[in-house]
Amino acid sequence: MSLKKDLQTGILHAVETVKQTNPMAGSVTNTVTINFVANAQLAVGGSAAMVYMPDEAQFLAQAAGAAYINVGTLEPFYEKTLPAMAKTLHHSGKPWVLDPVAIGIGDLRTRLLQDFKFYKPSIIRGNASEIIALAGLWGLAGITGISNVRGVDSRDAVTAARDAAAALAQWTGGAVAVSGKQDLVTNGSVAAFCHGGSHFMEKITGSGCSLGGVMAVYATASSAFIAALTGTAVYNLAGRRAAEKTDAPASFQVCFLDELYKANPKEIADNPFDIVEV
Amino acid sequence: MSLKKDLQTGILHAVETVKQTNPMAGSVTNTVTINFVANAQLAVGGSAAMVYMPDEAQFLAQAAGAAYINVGTLEPFYEKTLPAMAKTLHHSGKPWVLDPVAIGIGDLRTRLLQDFKFYKPSIIRGNASEIIALAGLWGLAGITGISNVRGVDSRDAVTAARDAAAALAQWTGGAVAVSGKQDLVTNGSVAAFCHGGSHFMEKITGSGCSLGGVMAVYATASSAFIAALTGTAVYNLAGRRAAEKTDAPASFQVCFLDELYKANPKEIADNPFDIVEV
Amino acid sequence: MSLKKDLQTGILHAVETVKQTNPMAGSVTNTVTINFVANAQLAVGGSAAMVYMPDEAQFLAQAAGAAYINVGTLEPFYEKTLPAMAKTLHHSGKPWVLDPVAIGIGDLRTRLLQDFKFYKPSIIRGNASEIIALAGLWGLAGITGISNVRGVDSRDAVTAARDAAAALAQWTGGAVAVSGKQDLVTNGSVAAFCHGGSHFMEKITGSGCSLGGVMAVYATASSAFIAALTGTAVYNLAGRRAAEKTDAPASFQVCFLDELYKANPKEIADNPFDIVEV
Repeated sequence: MSLKKDLQTGILHAVETVKQTNPMAGSVTNTVTINFVANAQLAVGGSAAMVYMPDEAQFLAQAAGAAYINVGTLEPFYEKTLPAMAKTLHHSGKPWVLDPVAIGIGDLRTRLLQDFKFYKPSIIRGNASEIIALAGLWGLAGITGISNVRGVDSRDAVTAARDAAAALAQWTGGAVAVSGKQDLVTNGSVAAFCHGGSHFMEKITGSGCSLGGVMAVYATASSAFIAALTGTAVYNLAGRRAAEKTDAPASFQVCFLDELYKANPKEIADNPFDIVEV
Repeated sequence: MSLKKDLQTGILHAVETVKQTNPMAGSVTNTVTINFVANAQLAVGGSAAMVYMPDEAQFLAQAAGAAYINVGTLEPFYEKTLPAMAKTLHHSGKPWVLDPVAIGIGDLRTRLLQDFKFYKPSIIRGNASEIIALAGLWGLAGITGISNVRGVDSRDAVTAARDAAAALAQWTGGAVAVSGKQDLVTNGSVAAFCHGGSHFMEKITGSGCSLGGVMAVYATASSAFIAALTGTAVYNLAGRRAAEKTDAPASFQVCFLDELYKANPKEIADNPFDIVEV
Repeated sequence: MSLKKDLQTGILHAVETVKQTNPMAGSVTNTVTINFVANAQLAVGGSAAMVYMPDEAQFLAQAAGAAYINVGTLEPFYEKTLPAMAKTLHHSGKPWVLDPVAIGIGDLRTRLLQDFKFYKPSIIRGNASEIIALAGLWGLAGITGISNVRGVDSRDAVTAARDAAAALAQWTGGAVAVSGKQDLVTNGSVAAFCHGGSHFMEKITGSGCSLGGVMAVYATASSAFIAALTGTAVYNLAGRRAAEKTDAPASFQVCFLDELYKANPKEIADNPFDIVEV
């Protein structure tokens, strides 16, 4: 249990540091959930900044403590923005989170996601189908090609993505988080199964996107693995609490953001998870 | 009353099918209300996917059960995206919903809306002024030219759009829904006047946009006329219930989305409407 | 105290006029908070319309009673949109509000903000760092260059921006509003320090953006100085009331929009402020 205790201490420290230092994470993210991403980042104690232009994305990559790239609603000129941002992040050793949402749809998305292999995102967050597809696109874990993706929804169980997640984390040297009924977070050598959340998180758009943005906030203050675990823990905690107080999705979302704000470091560190080898 | 009973049976079936099958509707829609559109689609039991790129829009047109095109906040490259998407939808016989919001503003919007005449949207949803203007743009119902439009607000009563709505539905072979204090839905041979809703729906942005997105979800599971009636019915029901529980627009919006989620098939089918010949 | 009474009478009149006439303000604004801007404009009694295309922005500049330009999430083609819109507004004498958010990030933003010097925005609204930076960019108040800006957050106190705000207002002949713990609004000859609000306004994204949009609504019905004071007053009032009823950011935001809607003209005019010479 010593590893688990170490991880909990790391989570506690990440939450405290963010609440004390109000770190800025910069994002290029989709227009569907961009407001939710920003408000979630603010709720946990961070600061948000969103841009689209190539030079502005490079500026944020240098000025921010960490960054978040979500390929949700691409526009043509992101062909310049996203590689420029990812390259700057990689070369400066700045942590960044990738959300490969809707992988498999469209040429530009595929090309961008291929390029990101070499800019090694510190954290990759997606649902099981997206994580399996990204491993396939990058030729990892013996998976070839992209399959079983339907828009933004997962068609695979979290456990089915375990090998793909581990292989991705081994490639990047960072962490991978697979969102689902129970969440899996791995650094390529161990994996944590994290518990909590609510079925309402699938009934509002942007639970996953905003979690990626929150992981970027925590990545300003901890390792990739701790940041992914911390984001997952506070989401599981706030989701469970919000579900206890509400009975429908929109009031759940309001309550969820409130609980993100209210959750204290010890509660977040104590949110249940199990460690397994990968 | 046999037609009305048939329609109610159709509504009941559409709601049940959507709740059971979680169908995906793809959208290109404006950035003002895109989040509301997605959350409304999720609340009624559907799945949402939003894109902007031409090839991604064509992908969604093929992969989704139905689609939603809203011309709200155009960008230059939509000149390729929207005709490509509409053409694919039309040629594959896939149902799609058009929201001609702010018709009359800008060259690109006018050209796109002209093109859509030949891609025959299954459902057209707008306020009275927009429906009259679209009939004018398409040279239907003896109306010529676009008039009386002020940004996104209607300056005409719903009943004033009755002939324009019927002519549009006759042209497309689908349905037209005119939103207002009482809503009119027509398939070109009969019209339903639908009751309910709340004055707060005009005090939040996106009531109309999100209704279009919800109609697209129902169009995956029923005829265009039934889908338009079903969307209108659940909006009228949820709007009336939310207005009973709240006294201001933002809490109304939260409650409205909650009530969209809670409304059951029978309640939706029983929401009052009257049938008239057109 | 005669000036203060005159200003309160002006505020009362602006609020009443907007509630009676439902004036439309057109915007080009960022995608992060665009929904909040529109809903805030609706809550105070106005109408909202958002576009991106150059000819549509020019249309709104002519058709709307006032306009709002926020340089938050620029796209390449805004290089044409924003100067075309600002030029039309200036040449037609139409009031408009500028939010120079994130000044200092990116080439296009800097060039656009430089151009706006000659299109003289009627109201400039920003945090202290943004106001100081804009005065520096425009070579006013003895400030040279842009400094101390970090993304969207202020690093300066409101009082530190007093000279910059006054110099900007003297240049434009309009008003400048500096948002902070207490807000400063000046017309270049007198300044008002306005009280109220809540610390939660910094924990939700878009308090400042939506305030700019609301000022544009009031600018359709009053002078720039009165419009800036009125927007500031209703935000301070609604913020204080919402903070009394909630204990976390997301429920605060819902309640805040509700209170914007509920605030009556006399309450808004009576919200406390102090007048000083500049």
